[in-house]
Amino acid sequence: MIKALQIIGCSSGFISQRLKKPHSGNGFSLISSKISCNSAPKSQSFRLIQMFSTQSQSNSDAPSPSSTSVAVPSAGNVLKIKFCQWCGGPAKHEIPAGEEKIRAVCTLCGKIAYQNPIMVVGCLIEHDRKILLCKRNIEPSFGLWTLPAGYLEIGESAAEGAIRETWEEAGAEVEVISPFSQLDIPHIGQTYVIFLAKLKKPQLSPGPESSECSLFELDNIPFDFLAFSSIFITLNLYIEDVKSGKVKFHYGTINKRLGTGPSDIRAFTLDYHLQV
Amino acid sequence: MIKALQIIGCSSGFISQRLKKPHSGNGFSLISSKISCNSAPKSQSFRLIQMFSTQSQSNSDAPSPSSTSVAVPSAGNVLKIKFCQWCGGPAKHEIPAGEEKIRAVCTLCGKIAYQNPIMVVGCLIEHDRKILLCKRNIEPSFGLWTLPAGYLEIGESAAEGAIRETWEEAGAEVEVISPFSQLDIPHIGQTYVIFLAKLKKPQLSPGPESSECSLFELDNIPFDFLAFSSIFITLNLYIEDVKSGKVKFHYGTINKRLGTGPSDIRAFTLDYHLQV
Repeated sequence: MIKALQIIGCSSGFISQRLKKPHSGNGFSLISSKISCNSAPKSQSFRLIQMFSTQSQSNSDAPSPSSTSVAVPSAGNVLKIKFCQWCGGPAKHEIPAGEEKIRAVCTLCGKIAYQNPIMVVGCLIEHDRKILLCKRNIEPSFGLWTLPAGYLEIGESAAEGAIRETWEEAGAEVEVISPFSQLDIPHIGQTYVIFLAKLKKPQLSPGPESSECSLFELDNIPFDFLAFSSIFITLNLYIEDVKSGKVKFHYGTINKRLGTGPSDIRAFTLDYHLQV
Repeated sequence: MIKALQIIGCSSGFISQRLKKPHSGNGFSLISSKISCNSAPKSQSFRLIQMFSTQSQSNSDAPSPSSTSVAVPSAGNVLKIKFCQWCGGPAKHEIPAGEEKIRAVCTLCGKIAYQNPIMVVGCLIEHDRKILLCKRNIEPSFGLWTLPAGYLEIGESAAEGAIRETWEEAGAEVEVISPFSQLDIPHIGQTYVIFLAKLKKPQLSPGPESSECSLFELDNIPFDFLAFSSIFITLNLYIEDVKSGKVKFHYGTINKRLGTGPSDIRAFTLDYHLQV
C-alpha cells in the first residue's frame, strides 16, 4: 500500500548510472522519510545532488511575454504589491489580526492580496517505450528539453490542464492514465503535478512555445540538456519505477542547494520523498 | 500499480450505507475513468449524488476577516481586477498576444495579473481507529465539521502546510505518512491536497478557527454535519479504502450538480476518479 523505502548511499542508483558529466560527490543517498512537525531534519531526506551544470535554467515556467504585456514571476513577494487591484488604493504591509504573516492590505477598502503557490501541470507520455519531450522555444531555459507542462488555469482540473498544455506545446492529443507525481518547490512558490498519459494519435506538432518535439528512448533521455530540476527528478523517478517493475505515485519537496544558481538543475535535494 | 475500476450502479457502496437522510436517487454509480482530451463525457465518471441537505455550506475556506481587513475569495474573476497591484495603473481586459484567455493587463506598465487555482492542504489523521475532525468556529460553514486544512502559503511545501494547518486548527502535532488525495474543484479554483498523518502526541487543543476538536470512530463520522463536499468525499474514500484493506492515492475532480447551491455538499459528481 504505502512504501517507506530507505536506501542510503545507493551509489548505483539512477544518477550515477545516467549522468555523463563528472561530479564531486560520493554517489547520492536516497531516503523516503516521514515528515515530522518542526522536527524533520534535512539529512533525513532523499538527496540527489549533482553540482556540475553549464545549462541556463530558471525554475519559472512563466508564459512568454508579448510586445504589449510583461509576464510576472509567480513566486510571491508581498512587498512588491503596492496597490489594491480591486479599488486602486495604496497597500500597506502588515500582519492582519489573526494571522501570522505580512500581507499587502489595502488602506482604502481593507482587502488583503493573498499570494499562494501556483500549480504547474503536465504529462509524462510513454509511446513505443519512448518519452515525449519538448525543446523550449521560449525563456527561461530556451533550447532545453522539458515535459509538456504549464500553469494550471482557473476553471480547469489539473488533468484537464495537463492535457491542454500537452496539446498547446506538442500538438499531441493525450489520455491521462494516472497521477504520477507532486513535487513542491517552496522557494519559488510552485508545485509540479505530473500525470502519466498516452498518445491518442501518434502525431506531434510543436506549438509556439516549442521548437521541436521528440520521443526519446529511456536510455537516451537528454539529461544534460533538461530545462528544470523538476523535470530531471520526474524523469529519473519514472525510469527507476520502470526498472523496478512498479510505477508509483511520488510526493516530494525540491529544495535548491545553498550557494547554487538556478542554472544548476542538479543542485537540489528532494526532501520528504513519499511513495504510494 | 494503476487501478482502473469500473463499478456501475453500486447501490451498496459507502453512500447508501452511511447516509441517514432519505434520497431520491437509485443508489449511485462509481466509475474510475481515464480522461480523454476534449472527449471525456461527464457521464463516464464517479457519480456520488445526494440531493437532500439543509446545511449551510460554501466551498471557500478563506481566512477569517478581521476588523481592519477583508478576506477576498480565491476563485478568480478577471473582470474584478481594475488596477495593477504593482504600479497602480488602470487595468484593461483583453486576450494578450500568444494567449487564449482574457487577462487583466496594466495599461501603464503592461504587466498581466494572472489568476490561478489555489491549493488547500490538510491532514486525515487516524488515532486509535478514530478520525480527527474540527468544528468550524468561522464562516463559511460555521459549526460544521471538517478535516484540519487551509490555504497553502508561499515558501512551504504542501506537507508542511498541512502540518501547520493541523497545528493551528487542532493544536495537534502530526507526522505526515503519505499523500492520500488530490481533489480539484475547478468552479471555485481550488485543489484539495490531503495527507494521511498520525498524532505525535495525543493532545488536541482547538485554535481560534475551531470551536471543538474530536476523534470520531469510522462508523460515527458526522456525515450530516460536514462543512464541504471535498471533506465528505475524502472521508468516504478513506473509509472505503480501509474496508477494502488497501489505502490508495486518489485523484479526482469535484463538479457541483447544476441547479444546486453551495450548501448542498452532497450535490456533486466526482469525475475522472483515478487511483494508484
